[in-house]
Amino acid sequence: MFEYEVLATHGRARAGIFSTPHGELKTPIFAPVGTQATVKTLTPAQLEELGASLVLANTYHLYLRPGDELLAELGGLHNFMQWPGPMLTDSGGFQVFSLAQTRKIDDEGVTFKSHIDGSTHRFTPEKSIQIQENLGADIIMAFDECSDPNDHVYSKTAMERTHRWAERCLAAKQRDDQALFGIIQGGVNPGLRTESAKFIASLPCPGIAIGGLSVGETKEEMHATLDLVTPLLPENKPRYLMGVGTPEDLINGIARGIDIFDCVLPTRLARHNAVFSSEGRLNLMNANFARDSHPIDETCTCYTCRTFTRAYLRHLIVAKELLAGTLLSIHNLHALIQLVNDIRESILDNTFDSKASAWLEQWQGNAERNNSEKP
Amino acid sequence: MFEYEVLATHGRARAGIFSTPHGELKTPIFAPVGTQATVKTLTPAQLEELGASLVLANTYHLYLRPGDELLAELGGLHNFMQWPGPMLTDSGGFQVFSLAQTRKIDDEGVTFKSHIDGSTHRFTPEKSIQIQENLGADIIMAFDECSDPNDHVYSKTAMERTHRWAERCLAAKQRDDQALFGIIQGGVNPGLRTESAKFIASLPCPGIAIGGLSVGETKEEMHATLDLVTPLLPENKPRYLMGVGTPEDLINGIARGIDIFDCVLPTRLARHNAVFSSEGRLNLMNANFARDSHPIDETCTCYTCRTFTRAYLRHLIVAKELLAGTLLSIHNLHALIQLVNDIRESILDNTFDSKASAWLEQWQGNAERNNSEKP
Repeated sequence: MFEYEVLATHGRARAGIFSTPHGELKTPIFAPVGTQATVKTLTPAQLEELGASLVLANTYHLYLRPGDELLAELGGLHNFMQWPGPMLTDSGGFQVFSLAQTRKIDDEGVTFKSHIDGSTHRFTPEKSIQIQENLGADIIMAFDECSDPNDHVYSKTAMERTHRWAERCLAAKQRDDQALFGIIQGGVNPGLRTESAKFIASLPCPGIAIGGLSVGETKEEMHATLDLVTPLLPENKPRYLMGVGTPEDLINGIARGIDIFDCVLPTRLARHNAVFSSEGRLNLMNANFARDSHPIDETCTCYTCRTFTRAYLRHLIVAKELLAGTLLSIHNLHALIQLVNDIRESILDNTFDSKASAWLEQWQGNAERNNSEKP
Repeated sequence: MFEYEVLATHGRARAGIFSTPHGELKTPIFAPVGTQATVKTLTPAQLEELGASLVLANTYHLYLRPGDELLAELGGLHNFMQWPGPMLTDSGGFQVFSLAQTRKIDDEGVTFKSHIDGSTHRFTPEKSIQIQENLGADIIMAFDECSDPNDHVYSKTAMERTHRWAERCLAAKQRDDQALFGIIQGGVNPGLRTESAKFIASLPCPGIAIGGLSVGETKEEMHATLDLVTPLLPENKPRYLMGVGTPEDLINGIARGIDIFDCVLPTRLARHNAVFSSEGRLNLMNANFARDSHPIDETCTCYTCRTFTRAYLRHLIVAKELLAGTLLSIHNLHALIQLVNDIRESILDNTFDSKASAWLEQWQGNAERNNSEKP
């Protein structure tokens, strides 16, 4: 269990297989986000059909509602939301820290107020693991502290706390059917990132995450950090770049040795009427699309593109029909998953380098940064 | 085309087949309502999977948005919303008359204001047919006037206007791939209903609708009206009871010789967290369901009941996740379609009478009246 097999490399890009209790993950892989035990507007059947294999859920949200103990009683998150494949839960840390006005951090943990009813709660590394064990995902995350990347002093403090908390998470962990990933922090400071990469790599975790990126740094800083960090990591563990990203970020991340990605961007854009396409990002509310009998993207094979015109999708948006969110989510998720699948094939047949620049150009107009879902 | 074959009768209940350009309708049949060219929250693939075969759309809404001429340009309603099966459009009359404050009726037609932007529009029988020909449904409806059932004087005026308008609709009709159904009016007055049934039955329409029911009369008045009217209608034309109904209404309607039904009730209830079940109507928001690991209905075979617990559905509702509307709509529509299919089987094997009372008892707790979707 939790073995990572690298099938092929191309430069620093890797194609591999990570084994979990709910099936194999073919990396590189993009995971849709199902914050509240649902990828918004989609059934598990639709998720499977569009090609999803790993789904992420948020510990903070599920702890508050419906509650992790209830979820354990009901057979865990897989059973609750009826997702048959591998799942990943975050630690709750990122969400809690994003409640900037209502949380207090100390060395032991974080006290915060619920965004739902203002009630006070406390997360510690031990509590995060306990909740994640109740949820029962295949991959669980260490409780970490994400700093402002440009604040060196805070980044050092947060990194050191993250390291101590990672050790406490490992000590607290009881289930052996969950892979606990440690998280590298350190802002955009090369010294801190190096120290953090070496420390987290030294822990007995079956996978390693890179946190604290796509939170306000520049693209160049993100790339420089990945260029620095991934060579310090063991080859035989998957690397997960948290909360990333855009199509461009996926191409650039894979080229720098990343194996796993997640992001709310495709479903969030869908709810704002925006879609990825090979013509660049489109907002389907635009009146130009009123008589457009083409699919979103002629090259796309998703249910939405196989079935509906831009004119119909625009009509649903203008008429405020909820089906628009469903159909646009299907397309946007499929687009990223298909892109990552195509990249995987190109790594396996050793053509990634020659195709990457064409992909980057094709997807350029779709670029924009986005963080993880906040409460 | 548009031939109706009665395969079996059981008392006054009938099982038959109505042929349309987009396929056969096995009657009795319940049609989901897709007001704005979408059955709310459902893809056509989900509609097919749950067993829908006839889908209704609303002329008033589609005339205003996206516009019938645009729809014609884009290949008609079937192509636009990608529903491959038979479709039915109403005449726009019911919706326009329900805009009580902003419409004026005269013998030629109705002038009304759009609920979207307040702009002024005018429907006449000829205009309604022109719009419905642009939309291109298999079954189209005569432009009629629905009266207050308890206002005898108004019911007479409205009925007479409805008759003249039906003749004008027949004269205006140009496409021969659409079946124009005439509509019987007359409130709850036996004399008017008899007169209207005979008049509409005399017209060269391949199907006959009964309008003006489920709009404020009692159940007893509805049943008495059906008992009076259906014996006056030819055997070889399908009978459509508009805007009805509840599970009870379907059983009672079929027993009185009705073949086609439509109602927004299943999808509207779904958006208000209510579901049909063999235990009676349930509101899944109820805290009792928080730990309930049963499906909505143990006897149901829909995707929602095959897959999810009440606890999960309640969580989606409490967390305001749109997927709740989708999953509850799938269940409610499947429940009515399955009920009607079961009734059809019982007519074919001559067991309807013996089963009807059990069905009525089973579905009793789900009864409640509901009108057609209003703007």
